[in-house]
Amino acid sequence: MELLAGHACFGGRQAFYRHASEEIGSPMRFSVYCPPQQAQQPVPVLFYLAGLTCTEETFMIKAGAQRYAAEHGIMLVAPDTSPRDTGIADAVQDWDFGEGAGFYLDATEEPYRARFRMESYLVRELVPLVLSHFAVLPERVGVFGHSMGGHGALVMALRHPQVFRSVSAFAPIAAPSACPWGEKAFSRYLGRNRDAWLQYDASELMKKRRTPFPDGIWIDQGLEDKFLHAQLKPESFEAACAEAAQPLTLRRHPGYDHGYYFISSFMADHLAFHARILSR
Amino acid sequence: MELLAGHACFGGRQAFYRHASEEIGSPMRFSVYCPPQQAQQPVPVLFYLAGLTCTEETFMIKAGAQRYAAEHGIMLVAPDTSPRDTGIADAVQDWDFGEGAGFYLDATEEPYRARFRMESYLVRELVPLVLSHFAVLPERVGVFGHSMGGHGALVMALRHPQVFRSVSAFAPIAAPSACPWGEKAFSRYLGRNRDAWLQYDASELMKKRRTPFPDGIWIDQGLEDKFLHAQLKPESFEAACAEAAQPLTLRRHPGYDHGYYFISSFMADHLAFHARILSR
Repeated sequence: MELLAGHACFGGRQAFYRHASEEIGSPMRFSVYCPPQQAQQPVPVLFYLAGLTCTEETFMIKAGAQRYAAEHGIMLVAPDTSPRDTGIADAVQDWDFGEGAGFYLDATEEPYRARFRMESYLVRELVPLVLSHFAVLPERVGVFGHSMGGHGALVMALRHPQVFRSVSAFAPIAAPSACPWGEKAFSRYLGRNRDAWLQYDASELMKKRRTPFPDGIWIDQGLEDKFLHAQLKPESFEAACAEAAQPLTLRRHPGYDHGYYFISSFMADHLAFHARILSR
Repeated sequence: MELLAGHACFGGRQAFYRHASEEIGSPMRFSVYCPPQQAQQPVPVLFYLAGLTCTEETFMIKAGAQRYAAEHGIMLVAPDTSPRDTGIADAVQDWDFGEGAGFYLDATEEPYRARFRMESYLVRELVPLVLSHFAVLPERVGVFGHSMGGHGALVMALRHPQVFRSVSAFAPIAAPSACPWGEKAFSRYLGRNRDAWLQYDASELMKKRRTPFPDGIWIDQGLEDKFLHAQLKPESFEAACAEAAQPLTLRRHPGYDHGYYFISSFMADHLAFHARILSR
């Protein structure tokens, strides 16, 4: 683990790391925010999964979350959104597929399956790395994210409830097996077998559960989000939660769009939501 | 005035504009944040001047100020840091001079004097434009900034106290006529006559005043700022304020550096400082 940069921030420390990832087979970067409380005692940790085209820096620069993390005493961790420098020609041509668009899954198809292993990277490598290198409470790990990363947060939480105790999302791709972004990514990463797709679709996964997160799930969605109707489909996840008796707070905000001016506006509520659950 | 983009943000509106500037002789961009209160009544307005290499976007993306502006009901305005596309070869070769580095002055030397007129642009064009196009209180205008923009804020306030009622800065270039950044910029924009330099040097200007800002001036400075000793010299401004009987809050923060993780950490205090003065 190599420290690339560190900055004092809200009484704590903002840092950027690179490490050799075995799951991905190449170096990966991630960012952390350590709140001031962490100098004295272990704290809960909240992973943020970013959206298409983002890197490990985006959230830390744009979301304004450090202030709230410092208030609540929560560590923040943001991984990159995919492997980089993969040498795969088809992985660098589109902004919504390949590098910068890993979709938080383990690819099964060539030529992606050796490198695009973001699910295993997160759950089997990055979470354990963070738990072993920083003063954090292993039973108090949450996840949230935006857009593709909102999909990632919901899917990671549903597939790995033993790892993630709290989950929220901003404008998630809530039914990726039934939208153009998801169809493009899943068909290339996972192949033609739609059963495989459903294992990475939050709405499909939720339908088969029974109140997997009794403390609730929190989602904010802007109504001026240009991707809302074609790509995001929060109503699918809402219906699945109803079917699963899963408490869901889904707030629809008139006027707000898909970007970080929207995300930052409601960041305080997400940190407070995770703090409530992770402090119990 | 052309609206380039708009985003709902903390109950108000983040927007980006372009307009044809007569002072600069070409299009200029600026950003505004309109707090929710502005829909009902005129509000105070606070201009932010950014540092070297920045644009009108930097502050709005990185500083996390909108939350506090929404709380206090203050409009924020951030201009670009210089003319753009000037066609002057020497103005695009260095990161610390020329485009992105206008130093908030009116150049008197060739080939800069026709275009590099940031002082006149701000005071004679942008402030009046904002006062006439938005619901703001013309007697309640403040200015703040960072680094080169901290210099700009102090100098603009001292040279135009009839325009700016409150002033603060993050890590300002506090004595530019006696540091490498200032010497490089002033010698090219203003020529060899050092008397002209002193008209744009906050410490020199302050020395000759008597309590120009009775409500005080607020400055935050990180002690791990790598530019502190060679370029910034807050002690010069501190001494000048003592000489001028100017109340000054100069906070020196151990561990903090020169970037926006530092700025965002203390943004709440600056907005509260301006709100106190501008609400009277």
